[in-house]
Amino acid sequence: MAKTNPGRFFEDYSIGQVIEHAVPRTVSGGERALYHALYPARHALYSSDAFAQACGLPASPIDDLAAFHVVFGKTVPDVSLNAVANLGYAEGRWLKPVYAGDTLRSSSEVIGLKQNSNGKTGVVYVRTTGTNQRGETVMEYCRWVMVRKNDLDAPAPETVLPDLKTVLASEDLVIPDGLSFEGYDFTLSGEPHRWGDYEVGETIDHVDGVTIEEAEHMMATRLWQNTAKVHFDATFRPDGQRLIYGGHVISMARALSFNGLANAQMIVGLNGGAHANPCFSGDTVKAWSEVLDKADTAAPGVGAIRLRLVATKGGAPFELRGEDGKYKPEVLLDLDYWALMPR
Amino acid sequence: MAKTNPGRFFEDYSIGQVIEHAVPRTVSGGERALYHALYPARHALYSSDAFAQACGLPASPIDDLAAFHVVFGKTVPDVSLNAVANLGYAEGRWLKPVYAGDTLRSSSEVIGLKQNSNGKTGVVYVRTTGTNQRGETVMEYCRWVMVRKNDLDAPAPETVLPDLKTVLASEDLVIPDGLSFEGYDFTLSGEPHRWGDYEVGETIDHVDGVTIEEAEHMMATRLWQNTAKVHFDATFRPDGQRLIYGGHVISMARALSFNGLANAQMIVGLNGGAHANPCFSGDTVKAWSEVLDKADTAAPGVGAIRLRLVATKGGAPFELRGEDGKYKPEVLLDLDYWALMPR
Amino acid sequence: MAKTNPGRFFEDYSIGQVIEHAVPRTVSGGERALYHALYPARHALYSSDAFAQACGLPASPIDDLAAFHVVFGKTVPDVSLNAVANLGYAEGRWLKPVYAGDTLRSSSEVIGLKQNSNGKTGVVYVRTTGTNQRGETVMEYCRWVMVRKNDLDAPAPETVLPDLKTVLASEDLVIPDGLSFEGYDFTLSGEPHRWGDYEVGETIDHVDGVTIEEAEHMMATRLWQNTAKVHFDATFRPDGQRLIYGGHVISMARALSFNGLANAQMIVGLNGGAHANPCFSGDTVKAWSEVLDKADTAAPGVGAIRLRLVATKGGAPFELRGEDGKYKPEVLLDLDYWALMPR
Repeated sequence: MAKTNPGRFFEDYSIGQVIEHAVPRTVSGGERALYHALYPARHALYSSDAFAQACGLPASPIDDLAAFHVVFGKTVPDVSLNAVANLGYAEGRWLKPVYAGDTLRSSSEVIGLKQNSNGKTGVVYVRTTGTNQRGETVMEYCRWVMVRKNDLDAPAPETVLPDLKTVLASEDLVIPDGLSFEGYDFTLSGEPHRWGDYEVGETIDHVDGVTIEEAEHMMATRLWQNTAKVHFDATFRPDGQRLIYGGHVISMARALSFNGLANAQMIVGLNGGAHANPCFSGDTVKAWSEVLDKADTAAPGVGAIRLRLVATKGGAPFELRGEDGKYKPEVLLDLDYWALMPR
Repeated sequence: MAKTNPGRFFEDYSIGQVIEHAVPRTVSGGERALYHALYPARHALYSSDAFAQACGLPASPIDDLAAFHVVFGKTVPDVSLNAVANLGYAEGRWLKPVYAGDTLRSSSEVIGLKQNSNGKTGVVYVRTTGTNQRGETVMEYCRWVMVRKNDLDAPAPETVLPDLKTVLASEDLVIPDGLSFEGYDFTLSGEPHRWGDYEVGETIDHVDGVTIEEAEHMMATRLWQNTAKVHFDATFRPDGQRLIYGGHVISMARALSFNGLANAQMIVGLNGGAHANPCFSGDTVKAWSEVLDKADTAAPGVGAIRLRLVATKGGAPFELRGEDGKYKPEVLLDLDYWALMPR
Repeated sequence: MAKTNPGRFFEDYSIGQVIEHAVPRTVSGGERALYHALYPARHALYSSDAFAQACGLPASPIDDLAAFHVVFGKTVPDVSLNAVANLGYAEGRWLKPVYAGDTLRSSSEVIGLKQNSNGKTGVVYVRTTGTNQRGETVMEYCRWVMVRKNDLDAPAPETVLPDLKTVLASEDLVIPDGLSFEGYDFTLSGEPHRWGDYEVGETIDHVDGVTIEEAEHMMATRLWQNTAKVHFDATFRPDGQRLIYGGHVISMARALSFNGLANAQMIVGLNGGAHANPCFSGDTVKAWSEVLDKADTAAPGVGAIRLRLVATKGGAPFELRGEDGKYKPEVLLDLDYWALMPR
């Protein structure tokens, strides 16, 4: 028993600590195909080598969110095995596309600590970096989680709160080398709407819905080697329900957003995100988006668009919070990200 | 909302109109592996590179029905999003095998229109063509669907009924370049029965059955990027059931037909097909076949066999229609196709 | 009906008979990705090309158990279609790693026969060999099953019981060419525990559990082209339950054993195994291990460890048999294997 991983507790973290996460992963066409089987993903840049090549890339990359899930999954045994709550994300940036054949690894630096006043839990902030086999950073993001203390007598660490941007500036976004949307084919991409057609404040109901099955969310979560018991073991929670990995809801909502945002091709920035309510098998996930901002980029024909992506289980679109200011019970996800779109 | 795709209505089609369908797709070993995970597919030519090479092909192709599903899936947002019924298929031909690495796209030409006497719906006939990254046509088929009118005041178009063959002649079939069954290995293929062993009128009960699960049919249908809501959203139909994509039943039945038709290797022609009754999760699909015709081909050692493939949910084999002439309620599929078999 | 495979009955086997099994199979990154989606597999050598290359291999192989399943699956139509019980395994050896692009086939030699005293069934012993496209043996194992007689009047064959080792000696184990654990990265592999840290008699509770779903075990079993009806057809057993392929439980337990045995990288020997009780959808599979033996190998930095791997559905760990000497009802699997581990 001593040989199994009990996970880290709040007192096991210290500012500046760097954790190299285990189990590097080589991705292939298999991961790409499974992503298309698990989500209704249709963005053309991630579906067709020929389309990606026409946009200046060497081939169609693995979906940006799949790259995120692979990087994230490795952190679970070290960061969130004893987490009580997944509190937030910030400063997420995709820096290099990931292609079939790439091998990814992850490391996290502890950048913030704050013990809660109850003395039983604390908040840990990490900056996680995903690296490919050439040592290039493919993505990075900050995440903070509430973690239990194991030794309640361990002294509280000095409180350090990282100074995180609530929104990435468009200058912070990294455009993949060679990307050009000048020859973009709006017929093949599926919609005629370009960057100039979207207005800040505009909302889009993505209309479609998917009813979630146990087998699917477990296959997805395992594919990213995320080991959190709560997703797999129906005997783990008192109610006998498996909690669905929040990333499964993110990928589902993003894929559903194709219908109305087919040209929001690449995700390059993650400003923030909240898993507003838990998702369970049998829930029917729908999605809506709001245009939060727009910006130019230096790449030919490429604009940036900042979007709020909201996943719900039923409920009317465009309603996020109740009168009490809290997320409505049917809201599953509230995500704030930057994508690249043809101008 | 204006940005999402409402689909086309009957009055939106006109004779000669060509619709280029969105979202090209590159297939890989991932799609092949998923096909084997989703269906009990065992035909050796689609399982083994070495077997395919011994038959004169460069490698094992993607299953012919997988190629069909990819081509078909792209047409759904443009052809059948507002379809009331999927009425029929004709003149389906596989013209080039599809290999890992190929990128497929589809286009459809409207070849027939007939408004129904109720004025609320009409039948649209299209000829769909799938093309690879070299611009080669990999397959084509005709399909007709009943589509709703949105504007009931729109004038009825002139009725045009295409002249479609009810059965492809053996001369219409295209044999893949280089295909030879002269060195065919009947041990590795799984059965000793060759073309000469089948007689017109012979029936085969394929014996095996598979009970269908929601997660599987949804993964299959998503893999082909088929977006029809009715397959995914349990809240869409009043009965809370997800209708299973008819193509899932076709692939399941074809895979089950291995047991008795292991050497009916390649599908080269689709004469017609009817989805006789809807299929739902929990149904146990079984299959039987009837030999309808046989023909020679010019390729070495290669014969053509025309087969009726019937999928049922329970029920006795070889019973297709009741006394009223209608499909019996347990019949799911009645398909008429040409396959290639070693002589 | 005459054309479908009825399977072999006990009287159809004879000593020395060699059965070439049908349907060779080419594996790719797709099979690898599906293995990661279906099981919580995290052993680094099978996850990362870079990690495998640092251990002296050309790339990350397909999981050893996936190779076993592919070889085993082909034998089902010839060996166990009419089996009443899967009685045991012995002398299993992995001789060459299997890589993406390899094509596998299988053959079996009948090495033992014993008719049961009831005259209705008999035990058939086979030695099965898996071969790649270069004719190299990739694995071999012995297996014995109880098979029904079809013709009860068929004479009983002379009883031949093969002389099978109950445990492979460490000298029998084959270490892959070039394998070296001298530069082994214990951070990337996920645990610090090396060969010298395990003691014979030590037990490890692997803690994690996975609740099994119908869609998952069917996809896994189909992926290996295992055609046994009982896994797929809910109408086949009187209780309406699909029996889960024993190999699915083996792979699930092995993957769960990562937590405590992350460095037991390669499986090279299978001494024996019993499917103690049937497994059904809804069962939550957990696992524990016991160190049975340890041995040196000639490869640099590589030790061998003999492990008992036990899968249970609930129940306390480390309890295998009741007072009656029989497996406790919650025990699913009792497997005895050799793995390679860094010294």
